[in-house]
Amino acid sequence: AETKKIAVIAGDGIGPEVVAEAIKVIRKTEEVFGYKFEFEHGLFGGIAIDERGTPLPDDTLQLCKNADAVLLGAVGGPKWDNNPKELRPETGLLGIRKALGLFSNLRPAFVFDCLIEASTIKEEVLRGTDLIVVRELTGGIYFGEKFRREGPNGQEAVDTCVYSVPEVERIARQAFEIAMKRGKRLASVDKANVLESSRLWRETVIRIAADYPEVELEHVLVDNCAMQLLRRPTSFDVIVTENMFGDILSDEAAMLTGSIGMLSSASMGEGSFGLYEPVHGSAPDIAGQGIANPIATILSVALMFRLTFGYEDAASAIEAAVKSVLDAGHRTGDIAVDKSKAIGTVAMGDLIAAAI
Amino acid sequence: AETKKIAVIAGDGIGPEVVAEAIKVIRKTEEVFGYKFEFEHGLFGGIAIDERGTPLPDDTLQLCKNADAVLLGAVGGPKWDNNPKELRPETGLLGIRKALGLFSNLRPAFVFDCLIEASTIKEEVLRGTDLIVVRELTGGIYFGEKFRREGPNGQEAVDTCVYSVPEVERIARQAFEIAMKRGKRLASVDKANVLESSRLWRETVIRIAADYPEVELEHVLVDNCAMQLLRRPTSFDVIVTENMFGDILSDEAAMLTGSIGMLSSASMGEGSFGLYEPVHGSAPDIAGQGIANPIATILSVALMFRLTFGYEDAASAIEAAVKSVLDAGHRTGDIAVDKSKAIGTVAMGDLIAAAI
Ligand SMILES: CC(C)[C@H](C(=O)O)[C@@H](O)C(=O)O
Ligand SMILES: CC(C)[C@H](C(=O)O)[C@@H](O)C(=O)O
Repeated sequence: AETKKIAVIAGDGIGPEVVAEAIKVIRKTEEVFGYKFEFEHGLFGGIAIDERGTPLPDDTLQLCKNADAVLLGAVGGPKWDNNPKELRPETGLLGIRKALGLFSNLRPAFVFDCLIEASTIKEEVLRGTDLIVVRELTGGIYFGEKFRREGPNGQEAVDTCVYSVPEVERIARQAFEIAMKRGKRLASVDKANVLESSRLWRETVIRIAADYPEVELEHVLVDNCAMQLLRRPTSFDVIVTENMFGDILSDEAAMLTGSIGMLSSASMGEGSFGLYEPVHGSAPDIAGQGIANPIATILSVALMFRLTFGYEDAASAIEAAVKSVLDAGHRTGDIAVDKSKAIGTVAMGDLIAAAI
Repeated sequence: AETKKIAVIAGDGIGPEVVAEAIKVIRKTEEVFGYKFEFEHGLFGGIAIDERGTPLPDDTLQLCKNADAVLLGAVGGPKWDNNPKELRPETGLLGIRKALGLFSNLRPAFVFDCLIEASTIKEEVLRGTDLIVVRELTGGIYFGEKFRREGPNGQEAVDTCVYSVPEVERIARQAFEIAMKRGKRLASVDKANVLESSRLWRETVIRIAADYPEVELEHVLVDNCAMQLLRRPTSFDVIVTENMFGDILSDEAAMLTGSIGMLSSASMGEGSFGLYEPVHGSAPDIAGQGIANPIATILSVALMFRLTFGYEDAASAIEAAVKSVLDAGHRTGDIAVDKSKAIGTVAMGDLIAAAI
């Protein structure tokens, strides 16, 4: 097979530890399936601020642009939280999304059977929850003009939320395509009773819907969606929404599954290029101890194989390996009921790689 | 006692039915405590659109301005959902908030013991939840400039989110004052890692905090707050946030208590003027059947007595009456376990009035 280039940006905190296990799993798929990968490592986030004075060095960006896909660990930590804006890890995150044109963030939220009790939601409400949030990632209030000005009553701060028709079209189309491959139900979330950008969003989604007559479309106001996720999580299949609402709702959805430490995400650009990362953060409190759970990052590799490379066999094999290791009772500390039997990051990576 | 003027806008759906019971309870407090109230009724929402061609007629607004407090039932319904913007009930809602200067929306979210099982959250996580969301109500993206324009890639829609220092100061101060009367813990929610308005928000809250050294202040990012509400709802006391985030988080908080049909709200202006309404909507599906639960509206009266009139005795008496009626096992259909024993709206109002 053709050699695929993966840019690896391990980042901060537990990032390097979980990424190392993901690479171990990728190497194993080379052996088993005959695929070939080449890794190039780049500095990003807090470590890049420390070593290079910027969260997103040019060569890291270039390395990502030259790659077929990006594997990201996690960025950030208290050390950089009070830095000025240009020297904060999240500025790098927003920068890389924009620079790579990653307009769509896919966040599957489902329940691992072995973790169903970890949720604060009742088991009978949660069981069967399996949804995906499709979040627009390079538009809206995140990227609109922001400034301060003197107003009639003193200083004012302004953020601007802008959406263009083509921006909504491409994310809507992607959401419909995903819905077609899943349960054929799409909830489009907006605040059309208040926001002009939401009215444009809704009109555009309705227009695109004409091309997907098989998909059942509902429009849900964002406040109502925040409620319905709690009341009837199993009723959702695909949720598509704009950047800011998606930030809030995807975190709510992930948390309610109780499996937040196990969930992966993909941020996609045009074509098949994508950046893959675990939903969890850099967890500075447990960094360097070898106890972090690498499963979310390993499952991000499965997403990469499926969405960027089309290696469905290897993607399914990774997912099956994770399931079999969990079914055999192996747990890292974060998901162990009996903490004394918990295994470490490397041991978990070894077990999953071996199960492929 | 001096006669207090209450503007009554019953609105749509079950609004008139639940408001009638609230008035019954107010009348009973006149007998018991010697207070005096005068009611003036105004048209608002869908019914005003039908009868007067506008959701917020001038005379209704004038009537509210001349009153000491406003009691609102509920507005809206599918009948008006596809109307143009000027002819939609929520346009009236936004209009009345702005015109009356109701800059602060208070949404207590707590659990009724008898309803704890109605929540989808596990009882052990939920028990003891008792928080209040203080939402800024007349600023931010709700009221900023909104328009369409031609951009380089076709049509664009723009919303503008603006906050001035004095706007943040007054809501922050109110939240700190409320925290001082409660558990002295305040969570200020923003998205300071992305939004300029959130950075101004956070700076201002920090500055105001100097006047309230006893209040323990934490800053929570909005996405994280959406998660923490699910993970540790009991850890929150007062949550203060801007308009859009407050819309989402207050609904999430209300839903997680499982008591959403019982929760009341207050929207306050300068001084003691306030508009009081149940959190639930107009429930057109059950309107006119005499089965709606009037408790949220009756508890809104308790809030009115406490916050606008300073009638703490009557406010507590109403709350105690609701509790005693529930403790005696009386339930409307929405909260009845055995639906065949459910009582109607009027019977519930009678029981609560009698218990005062
Ligand atoms: C760190 C922050 C800028 C980022 C966002 O808001 O997009 C994060 O919350 C996320 O969801 O990836
Ligand atoms: C109807 C709508 C405009 C309103 C809002 O978003 O403020 C409602 O959701 C609320 O919370 O009172």
